Amino acid sequence: MQMAYEFKARRRVEFAETDMAGLMHFSNYFRFMESTENAFLRSLGFCVVAKGDMKVSWPRVRAECDYRAPLRFEDEVEVQLLVSEKRTKSLHYIFKFIKLNTATPFEVARGGLSVCCVRHEGMKMHACAIPKEVSDKIEAAPAELLV
Amino acid sequence: MQMAYEFKARRRVEFAETDMAGLMHFSNYFRFMESTENAFLRSLGFCVVAKGDMKVSWPRVRAECDYRAPLRFEDEVEVQLLVSEKRTKSLHYIFKFIKLNTATPFEVARGGLSVCCVRHEGMKMHACAIPKEVSDKIEAAPAELLV
Amino acid sequence: MQMAYEFKARRRVEFAETDMAGLMHFSNYFRFMESTENAFLRSLGFCVVAKGDMKVSWPRVRAECDYRAPLRFEDEVEVQLLVSEKRTKSLHYIFKFIKLNTATPFEVARGGLSVCCVRHEGMKMHACAIPKEVSDKIEAAPAELLV
Amino acid sequence: MQMAYEFKARRRVEFAETDMAGLMHFSNYFRFMESTENAFLRSLGFCVVAKGDMKVSWPRVRAECDYRAPLRFEDEVEVQLLVSEKRTKSLHYIFKFIKLNTATPFEVARGGLSVCCVRHEGMKMHACAIPKEVSDKIEAAPAELLV
Repeated sequence: MQMAYEFKARRRVEFAETDMAGLMHFSNYFRFMESTENAFLRSLGFCVVAKGDMKVSWPRVRAECDYRAPLRFEDEVEVQLLVSEKRTKSLHYIFKFIKLNTATPFEVARGGLSVCCVRHEGMKMHACAIPKEVSDKIEAAPAELLV
Repeated sequence: MQMAYEFKARRRVEFAETDMAGLMHFSNYFRFMESTENAFLRSLGFCVVAKGDMKVSWPRVRAECDYRAPLRFEDEVEVQLLVSEKRTKSLHYIFKFIKLNTATPFEVARGGLSVCCVRHEGMKMHACAIPKEVSDKIEAAPAELLV
Repeated sequence: MQMAYEFKARRRVEFAETDMAGLMHFSNYFRFMESTENAFLRSLGFCVVAKGDMKVSWPRVRAECDYRAPLRFEDEVEVQLLVSEKRTKSLHYIFKFIKLNTATPFEVARGGLSVCCVRHEGMKMHACAIPKEVSDKIEAAPAELLV
Repeated sequence: MQMAYEFKARRRVEFAETDMAGLMHFSNYFRFMESTENAFLRSLGFCVVAKGDMKVSWPRVRAECDYRAPLRFEDEVEVQLLVSEKRTKSLHYIFKFIKLNTATPFEVARGGLSVCCVRHEGMKMHACAIPKEVSDKIEAAPAELLV
C-alpha cells in the first residue's frame, strides 16, 4: 500500500488577507498551513475534526514560520506540505511557501506545525495514539526533501 | 426592574484589522458589532452561546453596515449598541460606530444585526421564543435614539 | 463588444472560518463576496486596488447579508455575483451563496455590496466617475436574474 | 533614563476568534502578540508602522508559538511581552499567555516574534539599524525573566 508524505495546494492572496503594509499579514500563513494540512488529510479520506466513529482531532501544540520575502495581494502561492516526523501520538509537518507568479518561483516562507492526536470526552481532550487507519497511510518524508 | 436597551464598548483598530488600502477591512465592523452585542448580553448575565441550562443561542439572520468614513490603524472607536426591536423569537440591534480620536467625534459607520433565538438538538437548530429571563431584561430603545 | 454582469466562484469552507457554534462565522460571507468581486474584476482585466495608471479603487459604502441556512466546515459553496446596478460613480452587486454538497444545491445566503469608485490623493479619497474602460465592460444583469 | 523591556496587555477571547473545536484558533495567538507588541511601542511613543519622519517599520522575520492548554470563548488572558534580545537591526520578543479566569492563573501558551527594522523605498524594504530614539528606550529583559 502506498503511504503519503507530501501534498501541494495552491491559492491566491486575497485582499482581506493583506494588511496596511501591503503584505499578506503574517498570521495568515498559519491559516494557509492548516488548510493545506486539511486538504492532505482529506486526500487520504480523513478529516482534521472528529467525525462519526473515528473521534480524534488534531490540536496544534506548536506552530512556527520563517518569513524570507513578502507575499502581496493576488500573488499565487504553492504551499508544499511535507510530513517531517511521525510519532505514536503526534505528527510534524513542514510547509514550503513557493511564490509562483514570478520569473523563477522561489520559497518565500517556511513553516511548521506539530499536531497531537486527541480524543474528546466532554470538554476534556486526551492525547491518544494515532489511529491505525491513519498511521497506515502516512509516513515521514525522505530526509533530503526536508532541507 | 430596570430593562436595558443600550450598551457602549470601546476599542482601538488593530494592525491585523487593516487592509492594504490602509483602512479597517469592512468585514471587521461585523466582528466589532458581535463583540459589542456579546458584551451587552454579558452585562445582563447572559451569553451569546448556549451554556448550561439555558441552551439557546443567537444565530444571525441578517447583517448590514453603511460605511460613511474610514477607520484606520489605531483609531479609537466607540460602538454604541441599541436594541431597535424585540420580537417573540428575535432581536434587532443597530450599532453606531463613533470615531473618538478626532476634534469632534462623529459617526463613521452604522450597522445592524438581526438575531434569532434558537435551541439546538444535535446538528439541528429550532427557532424558539426568547427565554423569559432574557426577555424580562431587554426592551427596545426609544424611537428617538434610533435615528 | 460583450459586456459582463455575472461571475461564479467556488470555494470550500475552511476550519479557520468556522466558529465555536460549528458554523462559518457570519463575517466571512463578506470576505467571500469581496474575493468573488475581485475575481470578477480580474476576469475583465481590472483590479480592486489602484495600480499603475488607472488609480481608482472601490471602497465599500454598504454591505449586507441575509442568512437562510448555515454553512459548515468543508461545505462547498458557489458564490454567484450579479451586477444589480451600474451608476456613474458606483456599482451594486448581489451575491447568491449556493451550497453544492447536498442532494439539491440551494441558496443558503444572499448578500449585497455597494462600492464607490474613488481616486486617491494622499490620505484623501475622492468619489469619481467609473473609468470608461471599466464602464464599457460591465452592465447590470437582467432584472429576472436578480430575484 | 528608564529603558523598557516588558509590557502587559489584557484581552478577552471573542466569539469570532474561536473555531468549531470550541477553542481560540491557533492563528489568533499571533494577532494577540502583535497587538501587544504594538501597545508596547505605543507606550514608548512609537508605532509599528512607518509614520511621519521616522519611516521605519517592523516586518516579522520569524514567529512561533507553543500551545500548552486551550483558550476558550470569554477567557481572559494577560499577554506578557518581554524583549528577549536587542540587536542592531532587529528585536526579539517572547510572549507569555496567562489565563486569568481560573483559580490559579497559569501560562497556557508561549510565543515569540523576531522583527527586523526596515526602511521603505517604494515597494522595496531595506533592513536598517534601529533608530537611536527607539534603541535608547528599549533593552533586553534580565535573563531570569525569560525562562
